[in-house]
Amino acid sequence: MRRFVGLIYVSLASLTLMAAQSPNMSIPGFTKSDAQSEADWEAKFRAIPDPKIMIDTMKRLAARPHHVGSPYDKENSEWILSKYKEWGWDAHIETFNVLFPTPKERLVEMTEPTHFVAKLQEPPVPGDPTSSQQDEQLPTYNAYSIDGDVTAPLVYVNYGTPADYETLDREGISVKGAIVIARYGGSWRGIKPKVAAEHGAIGCLIYSDPRDDGYFQGDVFPKGAERPKDGVQRGSVMDMPLYPGDPLTPGVGATPDAKRLDIKDAPTITKIPVLPISYADAAPLLEALGGPVAPMPWRGALGFTYHIGPGPAKVHLKVKSNWDIKPVNDVIARLAGATEADQWIIRGNHYDGWVNGASDPISGQVSELEEARALGELYKQGWKPKRTIIYCAWDGEEPGLLGSTEWAEEHAAELHEHAVLYLNSDSNGRGYFGAEGSHTLESFINSVTRDINDPEKNISVWKRDQLARIAAARTPEEKDRARAQQNWDIGALGSGSDYTAYLDFLGVASANFGFGGEGGGGGVYHSIYDDYYWFSHFDDPTEEYGRALAQTAGTAMMRMADADLLPYNYNDLASTVKGYIGELQKLANDKRNEIREQNREIAEGVFTATSDPTKTFVPPPTESVPPHLNFAPLENAMDALTRAAEHYQRVAARAQENGGAAISGARLSAVNQDLLMTERSLLDPAGLPKRPWFKHQLYAPGFYTGYGVKTIPAVREAIEQKDWTLADQKIVAVGKTLENEAAAIEKAAAALESAMH
Amino acid sequence: MRRFVGLIYVSLASLTLMAAQSPNMSIPGFTKSDAQSEADWEAKFRAIPDPKIMIDTMKRLAARPHHVGSPYDKENSEWILSKYKEWGWDAHIETFNVLFPTPKERLVEMTEPTHFVAKLQEPPVPGDPTSSQQDEQLPTYNAYSIDGDVTAPLVYVNYGTPADYETLDREGISVKGAIVIARYGGSWRGIKPKVAAEHGAIGCLIYSDPRDDGYFQGDVFPKGAERPKDGVQRGSVMDMPLYPGDPLTPGVGATPDAKRLDIKDAPTITKIPVLPISYADAAPLLEALGGPVAPMPWRGALGFTYHIGPGPAKVHLKVKSNWDIKPVNDVIARLAGATEADQWIIRGNHYDGWVNGASDPISGQVSELEEARALGELYKQGWKPKRTIIYCAWDGEEPGLLGSTEWAEEHAAELHEHAVLYLNSDSNGRGYFGAEGSHTLESFINSVTRDINDPEKNISVWKRDQLARIAAARTPEEKDRARAQQNWDIGALGSGSDYTAYLDFLGVASANFGFGGEGGGGGVYHSIYDDYYWFSHFDDPTEEYGRALAQTAGTAMMRMADADLLPYNYNDLASTVKGYIGELQKLANDKRNEIREQNREIAEGVFTATSDPTKTFVPPPTESVPPHLNFAPLENAMDALTRAAEHYQRVAARAQENGGAAISGARLSAVNQDLLMTERSLLDPAGLPKRPWFKHQLYAPGFYTGYGVKTIPAVREAIEQKDWTLADQKIVAVGKTLENEAAAIEKAAAALESAMH
Repeated sequence: MRRFVGLIYVSLASLTLMAAQSPNMSIPGFTKSDAQSEADWEAKFRAIPDPKIMIDTMKRLAARPHHVGSPYDKENSEWILSKYKEWGWDAHIETFNVLFPTPKERLVEMTEPTHFVAKLQEPPVPGDPTSSQQDEQLPTYNAYSIDGDVTAPLVYVNYGTPADYETLDREGISVKGAIVIARYGGSWRGIKPKVAAEHGAIGCLIYSDPRDDGYFQGDVFPKGAERPKDGVQRGSVMDMPLYPGDPLTPGVGATPDAKRLDIKDAPTITKIPVLPISYADAAPLLEALGGPVAPMPWRGALGFTYHIGPGPAKVHLKVKSNWDIKPVNDVIARLAGATEADQWIIRGNHYDGWVNGASDPISGQVSELEEARALGELYKQGWKPKRTIIYCAWDGEEPGLLGSTEWAEEHAAELHEHAVLYLNSDSNGRGYFGAEGSHTLESFINSVTRDINDPEKNISVWKRDQLARIAAARTPEEKDRARAQQNWDIGALGSGSDYTAYLDFLGVASANFGFGGEGGGGGVYHSIYDDYYWFSHFDDPTEEYGRALAQTAGTAMMRMADADLLPYNYNDLASTVKGYIGELQKLANDKRNEIREQNREIAEGVFTATSDPTKTFVPPPTESVPPHLNFAPLENAMDALTRAAEHYQRVAARAQENGGAAISGARLSAVNQDLLMTERSLLDPAGLPKRPWFKHQLYAPGFYTGYGVKTIPAVREAIEQKDWTLADQKIVAVGKTLENEAAAIEKAAAALESAMH
Repeated sequence: MRRFVGLIYVSLASLTLMAAQSPNMSIPGFTKSDAQSEADWEAKFRAIPDPKIMIDTMKRLAARPHHVGSPYDKENSEWILSKYKEWGWDAHIETFNVLFPTPKERLVEMTEPTHFVAKLQEPPVPGDPTSSQQDEQLPTYNAYSIDGDVTAPLVYVNYGTPADYETLDREGISVKGAIVIARYGGSWRGIKPKVAAEHGAIGCLIYSDPRDDGYFQGDVFPKGAERPKDGVQRGSVMDMPLYPGDPLTPGVGATPDAKRLDIKDAPTITKIPVLPISYADAAPLLEALGGPVAPMPWRGALGFTYHIGPGPAKVHLKVKSNWDIKPVNDVIARLAGATEADQWIIRGNHYDGWVNGASDPISGQVSELEEARALGELYKQGWKPKRTIIYCAWDGEEPGLLGSTEWAEEHAAELHEHAVLYLNSDSNGRGYFGAEGSHTLESFINSVTRDINDPEKNISVWKRDQLARIAAARTPEEKDRARAQQNWDIGALGSGSDYTAYLDFLGVASANFGFGGEGGGGGVYHSIYDDYYWFSHFDDPTEEYGRALAQTAGTAMMRMADADLLPYNYNDLASTVKGYIGELQKLANDKRNEIREQNREIAEGVFTATSDPTKTFVPPPTESVPPHLNFAPLENAMDALTRAAEHYQRVAARAQENGGAAISGARLSAVNQDLLMTERSLLDPAGLPKRPWFKHQLYAPGFYTGYGVKTIPAVREAIEQKDWTLADQKIVAVGKTLENEAAAIEKAAAALESAMH
C-alpha cells in the first residue's frame, strides 16, 4: 500500500511541488526534502520520552489530592511551571477566579419503610498508601448541585435519560414531587438531574451500579481494577451543554474585573439537589422499592429484583455547599515559531484531579510533560519549529472545563486569528490508539500513527488499530471496508474534556488523542482509588503506553508546526459531512415512519391487545405525523462543499503533477492563514438553539447526552425533539454555514492556484 | 378479510363440492351444510368447560407429590380412569415397566479452598401447604445420571454448549479431569453432561442462575413467581436426542416380556455423574473460582465477579441411585368413530409430575380432562364423531417421555395405519396461544383459533396472536408480513413433551398447543414450589386460560374427527420446506465464509494483534475451507413437492369451481387414508445419522440442543458439525424422502381427482 503524499516543497523562500518518490520518506504537508529533515527530527524526538521519568512524574503529581483550590493543586502548578522553564520554554501561570462549590453538608437517609443512613464515605484500602489521605480528600459529591433539603418517595429511573422517562410514562409512573435514583451511564451525569427536574422531581441520587461499574465488570479494587462497593464517582453536574466554564462568566474570561452573574441566576447550576452514592449505599434504597418490576434493560447487578417504585422507600436528601470563588491556575508554555510565529499549535491537558487522579488526568499529563521535555531538548539541539508551539496544563477541568474554557474565552480574539490546531489528551492507558476530532485532520492523524510503534505488538499503531477494526467488524461489508480504507475514520468530538471551548466556541481544528482498552479503564473513575497504586497495578504499570502517547502527540505537534502547507484534508471533511446529512435524512424518515406505525398500531388495538391486565400500562398517545423536511438547502450546500474540497485537492494534485512551482514564503503563509481560518467558517455566530455559546455547526455535545456528540446538532436535535419548524429553519442555516465553508476553501484553493502561477 | 374455505361436502353416502358463500359458517374440510352442523356442535362444546371444575381437578391431582412409581401417581391414574368411565368413554390403563432411578446418595461439597457442603434441599414455605410434604417429595436430582464419586477442580462452563467449549479453547482452558458447573439454559439440560463428558470432564453440576431463573427475572416465591434461592430444577438428563423412553427397550414397548438391554449398555444413561443445585448452593462454589474473569455473556446475576477456574475451588460430587424397574400407567380412553372408526384422532398430555406439578403438567391435564368431560356430554346429547377420538393421560413423561413413547412403540403398527393427528398439551398459563407442529396443520390450526375467544381481551385468540406478532415485529417488512398473513406461521416441533414419538418415530401429523406468556411461566419449574398455591397466585388463578385451551384443543379434535376431507394443507408444507432449504444453503455459505474469513484474519495477524498480552489467549486454528455442496437433489425434490402440493390444492379448487360432484363415502375414505399416510412419507426408515430412532426428515430435537428443533436435521447437523461428506449424502437422502412425499401427495390428488369423475 502506498500512502498519499503531502505534495508541497517549501524552503524559507520558495516552494517546489514534486511527486513523491519514496513513500517511506513522505509526510503529508512536506516536500520530500523537508520530509527527510522532519523525519530525522521526529525520530530523534521519539527516542527521548522515558517511561521511568513518566512514572516519577506521576508519583509526584498524584502524591496527594489536588482538586481546584487545594494546596497540592497549587504546588503542582508551580512544579509544572518550573519544569517548563527548566526545559527552556517561555512559561507562566495565568489565573482565573471561578465559582467552585465544595460540600458543607451531605445527607442521604431512608426514612421509610426502614431507617438507613448512607455512608457517603470511601474507606482507605490497606496497602494503598494514598487512599488514607482523608484530610485532603474532597468528600463524595456532585459539583454545582444546588443546595437543598428534601424528603420524598423514591423512584428508580434507570439511567435517567429522556427515553427512560418515556418508559415511565408507559408504566403510568410520574416522578413529580419524588426523589429519583439513577444509575451512572447511558448519558453524562449532568443530564440526569436536568431531565429529572424537567419531569418534576425534587431531588436526584446517582449511583454506580455494579452491572456497569463494579463487580459485574471484573474483580474489584484492590483485587482488581473495578469499583469496590463503597467507591463513589464524584463529578460535575453543571449544565455543560448550555456552556462550560465558570457559571458566572459565560463567554468571557473569569478575570478579576469580569462582569459576573449572581449565583442564583447562573443557569448551569442544577435545579434540584444531587448527590452521588456508592452501590453499597444504593442497595438498601433500591431493595426497598415497590411498584412494578423494572423492565429487563433497567436491571443491574445487585442481588435482588429491581423495582421502579414510587416508594415505599422514602428518602431524605440534604446538600449544602460552600459557594466560594476559587483560583484556577493554568500553566501556559511557549516555544516561539521560527518563521510563522503567528500560527499557533496548541496542546493541552488538565492537571487537577477529583482526588489523587493518577489516571484522570495525570496519566495523560505525564505524556504531555514528557513531550515538552523532549521538544525542549530538540530545541536545544537546534530544531526550531516553523510555527509557535503552546503547551497548556489546565486547572479546574473536573468541575467544568474551567481553566481551559476561561483561557479560551479570555484569548478568543488571538486564538481566532492564530490557532491552527488544539490537540488534547486526558487519561491514557494500555491498549489501542483512539482519536476523535475535526475531520479535516483525519488523514493527518492517520499519517502520524503509521510512524508510531505499538509497544506490545511491535507493529505500527495504525496497523494495530486497523487489525482491531477488522476484528470488530461484524459484517463482510464492514470487514472489507476496514481492510480497504487507506485512512480509518476518526470519531467526532462531543465534550468531556478541555478541547470543548477550542472546537465548539472558537472553531479551532481540534483533536483528542489517547490509548486505552486493555488497562483498568474507568474502574475507579473519580474516586479516591484512582491513584498511583491502582494505576501501577492495573492500567499501564510500565508507562509504555504513556511513552506511545507522548510519541504520537509530540510527532503530531512537530509535524503540524513544521509543515510547509497545513495538512488539512477537505475531502475527508466533505465525505464525513455527506454521511451526516444522509443520517439526518434517515433520522427524519425513521421518525416519520415510527410515528405513523405507532399511530397505526394504536388504531389497530395492538397496545390494548398486548397489555397484561394485571399490570398498569398506558398506551402511547397518537401523535401527528411529521412533515417531510426540505433537505435541499443542505444538499446544495453539500454539493458546493464537495466541489470546493475537490477543487482544493485538485489544485495541489495538479501542481504536484507539474513537478514543481515556486511560491514565495509570504504567499504560502497567506495560504496557510486561509487554511487555518476554514474551521472558523464552520461556526455560526448565533450558536445553537437554546445555547448560543456552542457555535460549531458540525459538532456539539448533545443537549440530552452531555458528553456524547451530536453531529450537525442544530438539525439533528430539532428532529430528535420533533420540532419540525426549527428543523426546517436550521437546515437552511446550516446550509448557509456549509456554503461559507465551501467559499473559505475555494478562497484557499484560489490563493494556492494563483500563488503557483 | 375472507378466509379460505374447506371446500368439500360429504354426507354419509356422497360428497358435494361447492363454493363457500358465508365465510362465517365455513370450516376447512367441511361442506357448507356440514359446517353449519359442525359449528353448532362446536359452539355447544365450547360452552361446557368450567373453570371451577378445572380448579377442583387441579387441587385433586396436585394435592400430593406424584412422580413415577409414587402412591399418589397411581391414585391419580385410577382417578383419571374413573372419570373417563364416568363420562362415557371406553377407557383402560396400560402399564409398562421401565427403568427409573431415584436417589440413594447425593453429595456436593467444596473441599478447597474452604469447606462447604451444599444443602441440596428445598425448604417448605410458610403459607404454602404442599411445600412441606417432604416425606413424599423426590429429592433434587437429575434422573439417569450414572452413579459416581468424584473429586476434582471446578470449571465454570456457562451453559455448557459446544460453543461454550470453543470459548474455553480460546481461553486455553481444558475441562479434562475437572468437574464442570453449568447454568441451566442455552440448551436442554441433558446436553450439558453429554458435552462435558465429550470434553473429558468427570462430573457435572447444573445450577439455576438468578439471571435466567431467579430474582433477576422478578420477585421470587412466595412474594412473586420466580425461583427462590434454594429452589432446584429437577429433571431428566438421559440422552433423549438418541432416543426417548425406557433406556432398556429402545424401539419397542417396555412390556414384561420385552428384550431389555443391560443397564451398563444403555446408551442414554449419562457418562458422568450429574446433580442439579440451587443458586444458594452454587454461589459459594462459583465465588471460589479463580482463573480468568468469565466473558461478558457468561456472567449471571450473583453478586460477585464470575471466573472460569479451573480451581482453586475443588469439589467432591457423589451420586448413587436406586436403579429400579417401575410401572408407568397410561390411561387410554376412546370415543369410537361413527363412520371412520379406523381413522384415529389422538390427544395427550402427561399427568406425572416431578413433585406436585400443578403447572407442569396438571395445568394442561385439567384442560384435557375438561375437554373429555365436554365431549362425553356432547356424545350423550347425540353428537357422534366420524372418526375415533383417543384421549391419553401419560405417565412418566418427566423422566423421559416414558409412557407416551412406550405406548407409541408398542402400538406402532396400528398407529402407522390409523393415526390422523396427535395433539399434545403440557403446561398452560395466562396469555397468548402458541402452537408448533406439522406444517400440513398450519391452516387448520389458524382456522381453529379464529373461533376461540381470548378471555382477557374479548377478541379472537387468532387476532390477539396477530396483534402480538405485529407488536413483536422489528422491521417494517416484518410488520407488513404480520399484517398481511392470512395464516400466521406455526413453529416446528423439537422435543420436550409427549408428541415426540408420534411425530419423530411414527410420522403422525402432530401439534402442541398451549397458552402462556403472562403468567408466572417457569419460575418454579420442576421444584416443590410448582404447586397449587403457586399456580393460584401467579399463573392462571381463574383457570380462564385453562378453559381457553380446552376450547381450542377440543374444537381442533372435533373438527379433525368430523371433517369430510382431512384438512391438511400441502402448500403450507411446501412453502415451509422451501424456507428450510434456503436456510440450509445460507448456513453452508455462512460456514464457508466464516471459515474463510477466520483463516484470513489468522494470516493477517488479527488475533495476535488484538490479544492482551497480560491474558491467555489461544487463537483459533486454521481450518480447511468447506466445499460447495450440491443442493440440486433437494432443490429438484422441492420442485416436485411444490408441484404435487399445488396439484392437490388445484384439484380441490377445480372441483369447488365446478360447483359440486358426487364422491362415494368409500372413495372419500380412501382419499382420507391416502392423506393421513402423507406424513409417514416424511420418515426415512434408516433414521437420522447416529440416531436411527428419529426417523422424521423434517423435524428433530437437535443432537446438541436437546429440546430445540433442528429442521431437515440430517443435513443441517452435518453442516453444523462440518461433516461435508455426510451433508452431501444426506442432501441426496432427504431429497429422496421429499420425492416420496411428493408422490404420496400426488397419489391423494389423483385419487380425489378420479373420485370426482
